[in-house]
Amino acid sequence: MNASDFRRRGKEMVDYMADYLEGIEGRQVYPDVQPGYLRPLIPATAPQEPDTFEDILQDVEKIIMPGVTHWHSPYFFAYFPTASSYPAMLADMLCGAIGCIGFSWAASPACTELETVMMDWLGKMLQLPEAFLAGEAGEGGGVIQGSASEATLVALLAARTKVTRRLQAASPGLTQGAVLEKLVAYASDQAHSSVERAGLIGGVKLKAIPSDGKFAMRASALQEALERDKAAGLIPFFVVATLGTTSCCSFDNLLEVGPICHEEDIWLHVDAAYAGSAFICPEFRHLLNGVEFADSFNFNPHKWLLVNFDCSAMWVKRRTDLTGAFKLDPVYLKHSHQGSGLITDYRHWQLPLGRRFRSLKMWFVFRMYGVKGLQAYIRKHVQLSHEFEAFVLQDPRFEVCAEVTLGLVCFRLKGSDGLNEALLERINSARKIHLVPCRLRGQFVLRFAICSRKVESGHVRLAWEHIRGLAAELLAAEEGKAEIKS
Amino acid sequence: MNASDFRRRGKEMVDYMADYLEGIEGRQVYPDVQPGYLRPLIPATAPQEPDTFEDILQDVEKIIMPGVTHWHSPYFFAYFPTASSYPAMLADMLCGAIGCIGFSWAASPACTELETVMMDWLGKMLQLPEAFLAGEAGEGGGVIQGSASEATLVALLAARTKVTRRLQAASPGLTQGAVLEKLVAYASDQAHSSVERAGLIGGVKLKAIPSDGKFAMRASALQEALERDKAAGLIPFFVVATLGTTSCCSFDNLLEVGPICHEEDIWLHVDAAYAGSAFICPEFRHLLNGVEFADSFNFNPHKWLLVNFDCSAMWVKRRTDLTGAFKLDPVYLKHSHQGSGLITDYRHWQLPLGRRFRSLKMWFVFRMYGVKGLQAYIRKHVQLSHEFEAFVLQDPRFEVCAEVTLGLVCFRLKGSDGLNEALLERINSARKIHLVPCRLRGQFVLRFAICSRKVESGHVRLAWEHIRGLAAELLAAEEGKAEIKS
Ligand SMILES: Cc1ncc(COP(=O)(O)O)c(C=O)c1O
Ligand SMILES: Cc1ncc(COP(=O)(O)O)c(C=O)c1O
Repeated sequence: MNASDFRRRGKEMVDYMADYLEGIEGRQVYPDVQPGYLRPLIPATAPQEPDTFEDILQDVEKIIMPGVTHWHSPYFFAYFPTASSYPAMLADMLCGAIGCIGFSWAASPACTELETVMMDWLGKMLQLPEAFLAGEAGEGGGVIQGSASEATLVALLAARTKVTRRLQAASPGLTQGAVLEKLVAYASDQAHSSVERAGLIGGVKLKAIPSDGKFAMRASALQEALERDKAAGLIPFFVVATLGTTSCCSFDNLLEVGPICHEEDIWLHVDAAYAGSAFICPEFRHLLNGVEFADSFNFNPHKWLLVNFDCSAMWVKRRTDLTGAFKLDPVYLKHSHQGSGLITDYRHWQLPLGRRFRSLKMWFVFRMYGVKGLQAYIRKHVQLSHEFEAFVLQDPRFEVCAEVTLGLVCFRLKGSDGLNEALLERINSARKIHLVPCRLRGQFVLRFAICSRKVESGHVRLAWEHIRGLAAELLAAEEGKAEIKS
Repeated sequence: MNASDFRRRGKEMVDYMADYLEGIEGRQVYPDVQPGYLRPLIPATAPQEPDTFEDILQDVEKIIMPGVTHWHSPYFFAYFPTASSYPAMLADMLCGAIGCIGFSWAASPACTELETVMMDWLGKMLQLPEAFLAGEAGEGGGVIQGSASEATLVALLAARTKVTRRLQAASPGLTQGAVLEKLVAYASDQAHSSVERAGLIGGVKLKAIPSDGKFAMRASALQEALERDKAAGLIPFFVVATLGTTSCCSFDNLLEVGPICHEEDIWLHVDAAYAGSAFICPEFRHLLNGVEFADSFNFNPHKWLLVNFDCSAMWVKRRTDLTGAFKLDPVYLKHSHQGSGLITDYRHWQLPLGRRFRSLKMWFVFRMYGVKGLQAYIRKHVQLSHEFEAFVLQDPRFEVCAEVTLGLVCFRLKGSDGLNEALLERINSARKIHLVPCRLRGQFVLRFAICSRKVESGHVRLAWEHIRGLAAELLAAEEGKAEIKS
């Protein structure tokens, strides 16, 4: 395939992409396929001779699409949103053509420098404290990670290195194993599973702090755990506070947790994977208050800020905390500006070595929406979740299970877990909309997350009517069963 | 931007991509910009109101391109290649439009299933032992990681979990800290820096095994280290063998190292990040002999197999080794087929949670090139490196510093390191071609790697003539200095 074939096929692909996204409402949101469906549909080995592009594009429709869960359908209300926008797709195309690998400044200066500046732009949109910005000469700065999971792990590892060095400086001869044995990290019982995983990978204990009635981590519970562990000779070194938890979008109390971490010299990492995008709106910015106490902060523009996956934005107050933890400098990666203090080699900030030119996506999206456009997008989603909440509240058979702050509504039928499991089963089997559940205080709960860029009030209303209809059928069937029994 | 705007702008972008790649030879391969060049060229904050696409595309040419190191220029001979092909770009566009996140089977069945089958296709192209394939009912299988660095880390962590469980089963009460203290991983002194990093992250010792005269890890050196460490009460648990080292593309002796690891019950990970792609050619397949002893194997199609970054192919013999190490199952990620044994939830195989539909790139590339097309591509690059080697060998002022097996030539002027550093400085300052150095046995060496999809004999010849010319100038200048001194 040469450049002129690509011009032709690329344009066909652009049309296919636009057709797909324009017509997505007409596709069944969740597929019917059974496990193992795909293997029999394609050859057992790669072809020796080239296939044609026509064949491949036909196979996309025939083989791939029937097995796709359509995350951008306006009837997809599962998990959290994953971003999709045309400007981000355009930028990603450009990123693919440039195809540079930005592990060091020299490997492609534009790739590194645009990232630093875009992270400053975004930090300013969020009104992050200056200390997190790279600015002209600050000590902090931002980096694009692949995922919030990696950001948490990177923060934990940096904190681990820092505390280990401090302890070893105080007691020479202390081995790393002996240190690891004593280190404890903390997160609320509502934290994402990636936090537990970071603890596992880092080889440190992770303790769950019981959240309060509003699913928030509070001072008292954290303080209690710290005192207990310190009395037992353990060393608290890392706390993850979550803003916008995965199950119910609750918010840890940063203004309480922050000062404690600060006093105890504990690294505070703030994970706002989903909710962070909302902080660009002044009316939601207060949810981020207390971030000034954090050592690192992360959220995913690839969730709710229209920047296609992957783009997880992480800031640290002291760049040297990261570079000190990971820096290794083989000759084949050295370059002349390295020691100058003027440049950033992002490979020292992350787990992988290679990295794509992801900041192009931020640049295109921020410029083509403008801050106002992005704010309007967030506000619309929040508005839609309140519309759904209102529907639920109007129906006495249902209850809302957690405060609705942003784009997520947790709800259930008043009744047993079994009843709610049966409802979810009916909802997902009907294939008209797609939801996933969670557990709150042991109870089985349904999550309704506003996800698609194209979701409107009409879709939310249809979804609610559909759910209510299925609930009525279910309740009638249950009553029927009860009558037969009695 | 709506779908019809995207149709128009997307097609303009396709033309821009094609123009860029067709015209890349005319761009200076390495940029002139100084650190910090970009910040003054763009506003300090994101715009409130949208900018136009025209403005942005103009800024790409004005602001971004002057700071890009053009990895796909036929005059780029630095690092190792990074893949770029039109079929991969088309697939990536589709991946962007579908925009699903494939952390579990249910999150998008096609995304998971195509990956499993593509990894089998690729495994068969390499003639990997059956044990590594997912097949119908095998215990092994493949996964796409973001980078070889992550693959090494994942393998090390899985091995760490496995040995820890074994030791704790044998001595209940043994703490994780006590285990970590004793664990030792090994790799040759030529291994990539990502191996050392994996050791740091995993909290285990990593020991470098001295390589032999051909820069290969051999049985005797490894055996010696193992005996020494076991005698000291340490527990060897992980060995990384490299096929195609970063500095000089040397090959550890797998047929020697493999049986030792097997006997000692040590996890053997094989890192063939660059060289792995060549194993699809029967004449290079022997370099992979011994992989049957490995527990995990990894290489980067995103380096040399025309699949744009990121796509790092990793296989394991026992899937449960990975899933056992990382598995955490929160309710919001559970789904109905999960316990069936029929499906794969790739989130348990990797560090991040989210993942793009990367197997589309493999599918498009394998089908549109065909195995024969891919083999021809590898062979051409190897041929070109031998052409360069022949030029070097013909010039008595130069020497070749390591055996040329694939697409990399390590060479230097006979003379001091200072002389060679000066030569590299002249080469890179002239901006006609771009190279990076390495150190071999302490000596400063120049690396000439065949990288671009568009590099031809003519470019290699021009590069050599350019190098030779600069060397002649340099030697004359040195002679001049010597005369003045004497
Ligand atoms: C609070 C929170 N943290 C972390 C994550 C994980 O994000 P990622 O997929 O970017 O690792 C999520 C995902 O939903 C989340 O909700
Ligand atoms: C032998 C070897 N291993 C690992 C890597 C790192 O690869 P990645 O950037 O995919 O982490 C490289 C990169 O050149 C390499 O040559």
